[in-house]
Amino acid sequence: MANLEIIPVPGLPEIGVGDDLATLIAEAGDLRDGDVVVVTQKIVSKAEDRLVEIDVGDPLSHKPLVEQESVRILRRRGELIISQTSHGFVCANAGIDLSNVERGYAALLPEDSDRSARRIRDGIRGKAGIDVAVIISDTFGRPWRRGVTDVAIGCAGIKAILDLRGAPDALGREMQVTEVAIVDELASAAELAMGKTTNVPVAIVRGVDPDWLGDGNVVDEIVRAPADDLFR
Amino acid sequence: MANLEIIPVPGLPEIGVGDDLATLIAEAGDLRDGDVVVVTQKIVSKAEDRLVEIDVGDPLSHKPLVEQESVRILRRRGELIISQTSHGFVCANAGIDLSNVERGYAALLPEDSDRSARRIRDGIRGKAGIDVAVIISDTFGRPWRRGVTDVAIGCAGIKAILDLRGAPDALGREMQVTEVAIVDELASAAELAMGKTTNVPVAIVRGVDPDWLGDGNVVDEIVRAPADDLFR
Repeated sequence: MANLEIIPVPGLPEIGVGDDLATLIAEAGDLRDGDVVVVTQKIVSKAEDRLVEIDVGDPLSHKPLVEQESVRILRRRGELIISQTSHGFVCANAGIDLSNVERGYAALLPEDSDRSARRIRDGIRGKAGIDVAVIISDTFGRPWRRGVTDVAIGCAGIKAILDLRGAPDALGREMQVTEVAIVDELASAAELAMGKTTNVPVAIVRGVDPDWLGDGNVVDEIVRAPADDLFR
Repeated sequence: MANLEIIPVPGLPEIGVGDDLATLIAEAGDLRDGDVVVVTQKIVSKAEDRLVEIDVGDPLSHKPLVEQESVRILRRRGELIISQTSHGFVCANAGIDLSNVERGYAALLPEDSDRSARRIRDGIRGKAGIDVAVIISDTFGRPWRRGVTDVAIGCAGIKAILDLRGAPDALGREMQVTEVAIVDELASAAELAMGKTTNVPVAIVRGVDPDWLGDGNVVDEIVRAPADDLFR
């Protein structure tokens, strides 16, 4: 096993509609082939024009947006709505939030974060000639455990799940539950280097096993079908 | 923001009952003050004599153990049981598993993983004079998303949750949802360097913000009270 490094990428400008994230990230970061570049959803939503104006005076003015972005409401308590988005994610307030967004606006999730990740990956390859994997991350809560963690909502150039079913464990026995959600673990690892109160929306994870790289997709690999889900 | 490093610690012997994990880890790893040492539950359970004999010929012989270790069954489907353990964790099969355990045995969770973490931390400080934080990690599934990730089931010397409520975001506005479960993110980050098919049950995360260090406790900080939980 090799060491991994988590490298924050500071120095990105404030992102606006139409900004070319691939070029900006390639300029700000010292990227290398095989790096995993984790990009927070917020700057992707800004670049892709997913900001929506809300009424600053009304603390609930983003709630109709939450209903619009949801295909199914799972739970409500007070102002909190847990719902399933059109992408299949189950999260609070349909992933819409107001922090690190200009006052008077709410940021919706990207329409297709796997596609967003592919665009950034292709852009970095095309413009800088560097072959990286890209993960789009967002901050989700979870049942049963307090606190939020970052997870992947899109990826490109990396498998979302590492399938170890059938591989021998360290004692040579066949592994049991062994589909590891490596893109979620990578999103969490990157968050540790980004912080939430500083403006570092990109981090590089360097040193991942080259076997992890390849075609991958969060919506197809990670999103659990409602029929397979015991908590929906 | 500084770089983080994730450093696997290979070379530990096969762990048996009564082994002094603190000494073994301090000998195998190049530890430094401020490191976060992530230790997988399996070797803690082995050292703490939490292995239980099962019938090798009966693939369901660990199921009575699952019921014994559970205080409440949430869901059953086929052989899978999702339950709440006496510690308050909600997970599959009460955290009992058979991989990386000698054939004919099942490993129960430690009785009190926060205490286990404190013991290892105190042992490393006492024997090697190095002040580290310790996280005991385990591999849990989750609803809505396929694949497993590593989370913390115990910690010492580090806050489990980083409370950013009220801190300004990068645009100077007050943050909204901002209790970050850093011990879970650290457990996930460490897993990336350990792998599941190799025998590397310990990894070091180096370079964490010194503000994260201090008193912490997974059961008190992370476990959500059933009354506050929308999915129980």
